[in-house]
Amino acid sequence: MNSGNSFTLAEKKKYMHLALQEAKKAENLAEVPIGAVIVKEKKIIASGYNLREVAKDATMHAEMIAIRNANKVLDNWRIEQAAMFVTVEPCVMCSGALFLARISEIYFGAYNLKGGSAKILLDLFNIPAFHHNYIEGGILGDECAYLMSDFFRKKRKNLKEIDFRIT
Amino acid sequence: MNSGNSFTLAEKKKYMHLALQEAKKAENLAEVPIGAVIVKEKKIIASGYNLREVAKDATMHAEMIAIRNANKVLDNWRIEQAAMFVTVEPCVMCSGALFLARISEIYFGAYNLKGGSAKILLDLFNIPAFHHNYIEGGILGDECAYLMSDFFRKKRKNLKEIDFRIT
Repeated sequence: MNSGNSFTLAEKKKYMHLALQEAKKAENLAEVPIGAVIVKEKKIIASGYNLREVAKDATMHAEMIAIRNANKVLDNWRIEQAAMFVTVEPCVMCSGALFLARISEIYFGAYNLKGGSAKILLDLFNIPAFHHNYIEGGILGDECAYLMSDFFRKKRKNLKEIDFRIT
Repeated sequence: MNSGNSFTLAEKKKYMHLALQEAKKAENLAEVPIGAVIVKEKKIIASGYNLREVAKDATMHAEMIAIRNANKVLDNWRIEQAAMFVTVEPCVMCSGALFLARISEIYFGAYNLKGGSAKILLDLFNIPAFHHNYIEGGILGDECAYLMSDFFRKKRKNLKEIDFRIT
C-alpha cells in the first residue's frame, strides 16, 4: 500500500461519505464539523470526529481520535497498510500523528487555507526525513467545504442575533 | 508571557530537572526516556512521560500527555500563559499540539536530529500563520541527550546479547 492510491474513485467517495457522517456527529454537538475514518483491507477499522470543545482537550481532533481508536482495535501503535479519509486537510499536529502511526495513505476533502499543513502550508509529506505517505485532497471537496462554511456562517449569525438581543 | 523567556537560567534548569525526572519514569518502563512538565505562574500544573509502547498508542508522547493533563487541570483546552519544559526537541505532532493548546513558551533539552521539528527540520515556530511561541533549546542539554543515548546504547547491547544467544 506504500505506493499509494490503492482505491478507485468510487471507493474514495464511499469512504469520504462515511467520514462526512462522522463530521455531522461533531456538528450536532456544536463542534467544528470534521470527521475521519481509517480503512484497512477495505474495511473501516476506526472513526472519529472533532470533540475539542466537549472534551475540553486541545488534542481531540477527528484524526487523533480515529488514530487512537485504531491503535486500540489493532492493539498496536502501528497502523500499517491503512488509509485515512478525513473531511478537511490535516493540521500540523494531525499530520505528525499520521506519520508516527505509519498510516500510508491520506485522503482529505476540503483544503484548509488557515491551518492545513498537508498540502498548502508546509507540504510536510514531501520532507525526505519523514516516511513517504501518499496524500490526495479534494475527495468530495465541495460537500466537505460546504459543511464547514455552513457551520461558521450559522455560528456568525447566532453571534449577531445574540449581539442584537443584548443591544 | 507571549514575549517569551520569562524564566531565569536557574529556574529553567530547575524545571528541566523535573522534566528529566519524568523522563526517568519512562526509562523505568523501557520507553524512550522523554519527559515534560507544564509550568503556569511558576507552578507545575501537569507532567507526562513517553508511554507509546506501554499504552500501544502512537500519540502518547510526553508532551501530548502533559498537554492533556493540563487541559484536565484547567478544565479548558487552552493552556495560556504557560510554559512547557521537555527533555527532547518536540516532533511535528507535539509541535502542532503546542500551537493548538496555546502554550506560549517551550524550553527543550536535547536537540533531536532525527525527528525534531521545532528548531532543526522545519522551524515550525517561525511560520507567520501560526501563533508566535518562544522556543529555546539546550537547557540541561547534555543530561537530556545522555539519558537518550544511554538508553539506545543499552538497547542495542541487549539486542546483541539476544542475537548471540540465538546463534
